[in-house]
Amino acid sequence: MARAYIVGVGMTKIDRHYDKGYHDLVYSAIRMLEKDVKMFSPEAIVVGNMMSSSLYQQDSLAALVADAAGLRGVGGMKVEAACGSGGHAVAVGYSLVASGLYNQVLVVGVEKMSDYPTATVTSALAQAADAEHEYIYGISFPALNALVMRLYMNRYEARREDLAIWPVRMHEYGSKNPFAQLRNMITVEDVINSPTIADPIKLMDSAPIGDGAAAILIASEDIARKISDTPIEIAGVGLGSDALDLSSREDLLYPLSVVRAAEKAYKMAGVEPKDIDVAEIHDAFTITALLSIEGLGFTRPGESWKMIRDGRFSVGDKPSINLSGGLKARGHPVGATGVYQVAEIAMQLRGDFPGVRAPSPLIGLAMNTGGVATLTSVIILRR
Amino acid sequence: MARAYIVGVGMTKIDRHYDKGYHDLVYSAIRMLEKDVKMFSPEAIVVGNMMSSSLYQQDSLAALVADAAGLRGVGGMKVEAACGSGGHAVAVGYSLVASGLYNQVLVVGVEKMSDYPTATVTSALAQAADAEHEYIYGISFPALNALVMRLYMNRYEARREDLAIWPVRMHEYGSKNPFAQLRNMITVEDVINSPTIADPIKLMDSAPIGDGAAAILIASEDIARKISDTPIEIAGVGLGSDALDLSSREDLLYPLSVVRAAEKAYKMAGVEPKDIDVAEIHDAFTITALLSIEGLGFTRPGESWKMIRDGRFSVGDKPSINLSGGLKARGHPVGATGVYQVAEIAMQLRGDFPGVRAPSPLIGLAMNTGGVATLTSVIILRR
Repeated sequence: MARAYIVGVGMTKIDRHYDKGYHDLVYSAIRMLEKDVKMFSPEAIVVGNMMSSSLYQQDSLAALVADAAGLRGVGGMKVEAACGSGGHAVAVGYSLVASGLYNQVLVVGVEKMSDYPTATVTSALAQAADAEHEYIYGISFPALNALVMRLYMNRYEARREDLAIWPVRMHEYGSKNPFAQLRNMITVEDVINSPTIADPIKLMDSAPIGDGAAAILIASEDIARKISDTPIEIAGVGLGSDALDLSSREDLLYPLSVVRAAEKAYKMAGVEPKDIDVAEIHDAFTITALLSIEGLGFTRPGESWKMIRDGRFSVGDKPSINLSGGLKARGHPVGATGVYQVAEIAMQLRGDFPGVRAPSPLIGLAMNTGGVATLTSVIILRR
Repeated sequence: MARAYIVGVGMTKIDRHYDKGYHDLVYSAIRMLEKDVKMFSPEAIVVGNMMSSSLYQQDSLAALVADAAGLRGVGGMKVEAACGSGGHAVAVGYSLVASGLYNQVLVVGVEKMSDYPTATVTSALAQAADAEHEYIYGISFPALNALVMRLYMNRYEARREDLAIWPVRMHEYGSKNPFAQLRNMITVEDVINSPTIADPIKLMDSAPIGDGAAAILIASEDIARKISDTPIEIAGVGLGSDALDLSSREDLLYPLSVVRAAEKAYKMAGVEPKDIDVAEIHDAFTITALLSIEGLGFTRPGESWKMIRDGRFSVGDKPSINLSGGLKARGHPVGATGVYQVAEIAMQLRGDFPGVRAPSPLIGLAMNTGGVATLTSVIILRR
């Protein structure tokens, strides 16, 4: 199997960028990426994005990115797996290089969410659910996750206060990350007293709505060291799915897609969960963090909330998880998030992440999912 | 570079399937595919689709396909490049196999268009254009192509009657293809007397609105011969782009994205335009056929309409083009079309295409584009 490397990264601060369009966000991420590499000449473009079609009436995003990046003529495509689009775009970018098809591939994740009323965005997000069996009956994406969170709390006797520790920690890390959307510190009381979105999910259990773009450049083994002094190997890639409608799943607390994606990525990289030094996982809601940690094999089912309560998965632990602030505080411009995660892990391994850093990590993992863990990608990076 | 093969194909007849949903269309294409292979156990799913998000409020299509195909747990993603989504999905499927990541990948193209009023579908199709510089001013996709067709007719002094020969030929071939949407024969007078869609484009210059799904199974060299007695090699893959908004292109009659995609695919396959025996090209409108033929290097700019008038590119010529009936008569369920094309070329090379067949072809080509040749894929297959 041919190897592929991340040779450069770029990103915008996530925010409600009312004054910026798709073009502007992509352009600013690529400007940072260009400064991070010695040679910028992508031969193909992969775009991670969920909602440009439903909110902005814009398909053909790969051509928009080619325009913004000054790469007219360079082909490519958009990759969509709902909120997991970015991670899946990285998997496609990896494949385009590792197959030998292209030597240098640009992967961009971009999303604009803040120009519309929250109800419109909530509706667009619900397209991640089953249109015929869920969406049409008016269910929202937070409501689906609330069902799962309630079941988790009941089955594992998890207390609401303990489940508030995760977002508090995320805000603490986010406050140190210059690219994060939410940089304020919060307390357990803040979480519990915040408005209910869909019981038992509180506002502060939920990732914010924001806009952003992140970019990485993937290169073949032949040219990686010419482009970067610190190439980071893409050592493992895995994908997984679960039933689209929740009613036909066997157990809502068994994240099948995460388990499958992780198995494949671990095997390819030749590592186990205990080998991961630093990870960025999908925590659109607090419950998503718990099931992601369990699905990745960092602990047994039903145990993650206790370990978080006991301080595990913090900076310095193995793995240190979501030092960026996670989706909760770094932000979650949905189709871009997976690319942010991979860029952040690459910077952690290079030692130049501009926020909270893991101590000399060798192996990192990025896990991104669309829907209620419906389509998951796991990417393992190695220094 | 590792090799990848098409080891099985399946498709539905294209039609206005008012009684079928996405699930049904995908299921029927996969049932045919399963009968075409000795072993069906895909490890990943790639879905070519343009409009499930804008028309059906359904993202996460890869999970829907996993459900329909009985492949719960198998991961994947949707690939979008407007009307070129299908061909780009095949390129991604190729890469997932040739990279060594997966041994068996299912590529499905699917589109449902007929449940909505034509104006709604026309609006969704216009998302292929530039949202900020074209769509927002109310331009339609046929209107953009009409600008290009008028310029072509003026610059090359092409006569309207001569440009009607292409759709007449497409209907003749389509009448022999059991999967084609339009199976009636038409005359040059029929084309010229059909309603004007956007002057000079007539109704019968235009691909119909329809629903369909096509599927191919791509396998690695290791297992291809175990799955199929007639594996077809994917010998060349190329992608290309052009400026999203037409006003910033240098020459509307120079199909940059087609030229770039073709150059790459020819080089990878080690062939030239004159080596192609049989081809399926993108002819959403008559003008699209002309520029596609020229961009692929089958003739010089401005010459294709004369060659078509003189009977070239018919069955038995080299290359024989669009023996399926093309987008014009086989139909154009937009995001599915590129997968139909590749499946048809594979069947031509196997010798079992159930319509008009090229005589013993060795090398075939499928070219699919999104927008006004904005994002193009070229796939070259070899027996």
